[in-house]
Amino acid sequence: MLVDGKEYRSIQLKPGEREVVRIIDQTFLPHEFRLVDLVTLEDFCRAISTMQVRGAGLIGATAAFGMVSAARQAPRQSFEADIADAAAQLCATRPTAANLAWAVSQVQTAIDTADGIDNKIEAAFEAAQAVLEGDAETSRRIGLHGLEIIRALAARKASGPLNILTHCNAGCLAFVDHGTATAPIYAAQAAGIDLHVWVDETRPRNQGAALTAWELAAQGVPHDLIVDNAGGHLMQHGLVDMVIVGADRVTRRGDVANKIGTYLKALAAHDNGIPFFVALPCSTFDFSMDDGLAEIPIEERDPHELSHVVGRLPSGELGEVLICPQQTSARNYGFDVTPARLITKLICEHGVCDAEPNSIATLLMKGA
Amino acid sequence: MLVDGKEYRSIQLKPGEREVVRIIDQTFLPHEFRLVDLVTLEDFCRAISTMQVRGAGLIGATAAFGMVSAARQAPRQSFEADIADAAAQLCATRPTAANLAWAVSQVQTAIDTADGIDNKIEAAFEAAQAVLEGDAETSRRIGLHGLEIIRALAARKASGPLNILTHCNAGCLAFVDHGTATAPIYAAQAAGIDLHVWVDETRPRNQGAALTAWELAAQGVPHDLIVDNAGGHLMQHGLVDMVIVGADRVTRRGDVANKIGTYLKALAAHDNGIPFFVALPCSTFDFSMDDGLAEIPIEERDPHELSHVVGRLPSGELGEVLICPQQTSARNYGFDVTPARLITKLICEHGVCDAEPNSIATLLMKGA
Repeated sequence: MLVDGKEYRSIQLKPGEREVVRIIDQTFLPHEFRLVDLVTLEDFCRAISTMQVRGAGLIGATAAFGMVSAARQAPRQSFEADIADAAAQLCATRPTAANLAWAVSQVQTAIDTADGIDNKIEAAFEAAQAVLEGDAETSRRIGLHGLEIIRALAARKASGPLNILTHCNAGCLAFVDHGTATAPIYAAQAAGIDLHVWVDETRPRNQGAALTAWELAAQGVPHDLIVDNAGGHLMQHGLVDMVIVGADRVTRRGDVANKIGTYLKALAAHDNGIPFFVALPCSTFDFSMDDGLAEIPIEERDPHELSHVVGRLPSGELGEVLICPQQTSARNYGFDVTPARLITKLICEHGVCDAEPNSIATLLMKGA
Repeated sequence: MLVDGKEYRSIQLKPGEREVVRIIDQTFLPHEFRLVDLVTLEDFCRAISTMQVRGAGLIGATAAFGMVSAARQAPRQSFEADIADAAAQLCATRPTAANLAWAVSQVQTAIDTADGIDNKIEAAFEAAQAVLEGDAETSRRIGLHGLEIIRALAARKASGPLNILTHCNAGCLAFVDHGTATAPIYAAQAAGIDLHVWVDETRPRNQGAALTAWELAAQGVPHDLIVDNAGGHLMQHGLVDMVIVGADRVTRRGDVANKIGTYLKALAAHDNGIPFFVALPCSTFDFSMDDGLAEIPIEERDPHELSHVVGRLPSGELGEVLICPQQTSARNYGFDVTPARLITKLICEHGVCDAEPNSIATLLMKGA
């Protein structure tokens, strides 16, 4: 991703160093762009648990390098035990992040398979690099498949930019690079297609306002911020040509759990004949589930996220304001489920498929 | 409305006085309950223009008493000219509020019709009282008609409270008393029906979080605040039994302009087989329009309302925070249009009708 014209990834090795990992501290975005260097296992655990890094792909890559750090730190006499302990610590930082546990196990397996401490450390580093590069490559491929869809829609447009609506942040900042929902947007920008993005604020945590608006600005993609309430109105008036969102979990029939409010946008897109796309790495499929509404558990989060809004005070400092009576009870549901019937296509690293069991299975077999 | 167990209206005469009008200063809600006394024409103009009072019914009643104040203040030799000037000043405070101009003209007509200054002042007072009491009575009747709907839905429920979702504030605080969307809720509460209200935050101005949550708490109606994104999820899971909202304008075919985001809730209600009601005084019908989507102009407001969130700082003072990058462009649409096909019934002071031209016309003829 570009920031002030310079290439960054949301996680990367510090230039010229193999033992220092550099992340963008997302807790200060969009108000300050701060880089943080991670060296010790504690650094990595803190970065994940305090949400300096967030998003499935990015959490996984951070945890993988956390394991490398643990391997370097571990005394030879307690190496195996220390590594196991580090894996447990890292997995405990965000217990529901499936990709985190997967990334940790990738590095653990590499360590277990290599012979001798030095080889184990080197194997850990290579495994973590593979996790990181694999994530970036997955996003890049999602972008290329999505680009073809954007190209076709743009070709049908008589004039003006193609207007794309997105919800939450499934962007560069949630993955190592490119993002999922944003990957086709960046690919289309690179291909010279005239684009404009409607950025849903995404209450209660405002990831759209804080993160998506920030990264689109950094990349130079034209965009406007809107409240989550506005998408239906825009679609009724022909101001949205397509919707593209990410996913937290997708069942084998193609029901999609994503940030709360996604379902409302899918309904509005359907009501107005606007195509609705979900971009995801294949690792997001959960084949243990079929009926998303009945089976996907929906996290209920701290109501403080809703009753208090975080942002920059006129003084320049970060602060928060209470927006309701002090004693108001609030309920804070993190996700909703968009039924497969409302989804035009799923866009994965292996290609594009219908939100339907056979089409999903065929695509995954092609990729395997 | 009840506040700390005491009866208030959003506007009323100061107890025991005929020349002082007392309002609740809504700019401090929900964080402070402040009453403000209005005496001079300037007081009334400021109360409307700074939004100490807001909402169609309440603005009208405030303007009507502003005319009374002007009549009392006006020197005899320039009485007519001063009244005309006061009418113009009051109408200019919120130029798009149709009810304001109507209320001012009611008092103007009373003044024009009476003979002699003293009689004119008395006629103005009586006309303003009629505007105020008429508004309260309209809301009370909407409540009684809506109560029958709630009673029928509650009777069909096997257990637990009837869950009602509302958007924005069409409550006591927008009218003289009772509100429109809230009037049936308060009537049902008084009738002993077990209720629970889901309060949409209502971005960008957060009228749900700030005003509806406050007045429901004051009245003792059980409720929970949710983000605007959450309603669809709740409806999918059987947690909403009915939706009731107010309206800013309704066309002759029954298309409803209301706070931005209303359309998304109507879509979700329709998708889940949940009845969707709109409560309104008949004065909200605009028979000059038919196709709401094509004909109702949608106000675009200052993007600052979206990029900055107002609330109470930890210090107790009111403040605001910026939630996006400083340079982000935002678009702030105030309303959207819910097509008649998504509306179960319209609830007016004269009764209940379908959102359909003949049904609306029949109801209005009954009321005329």
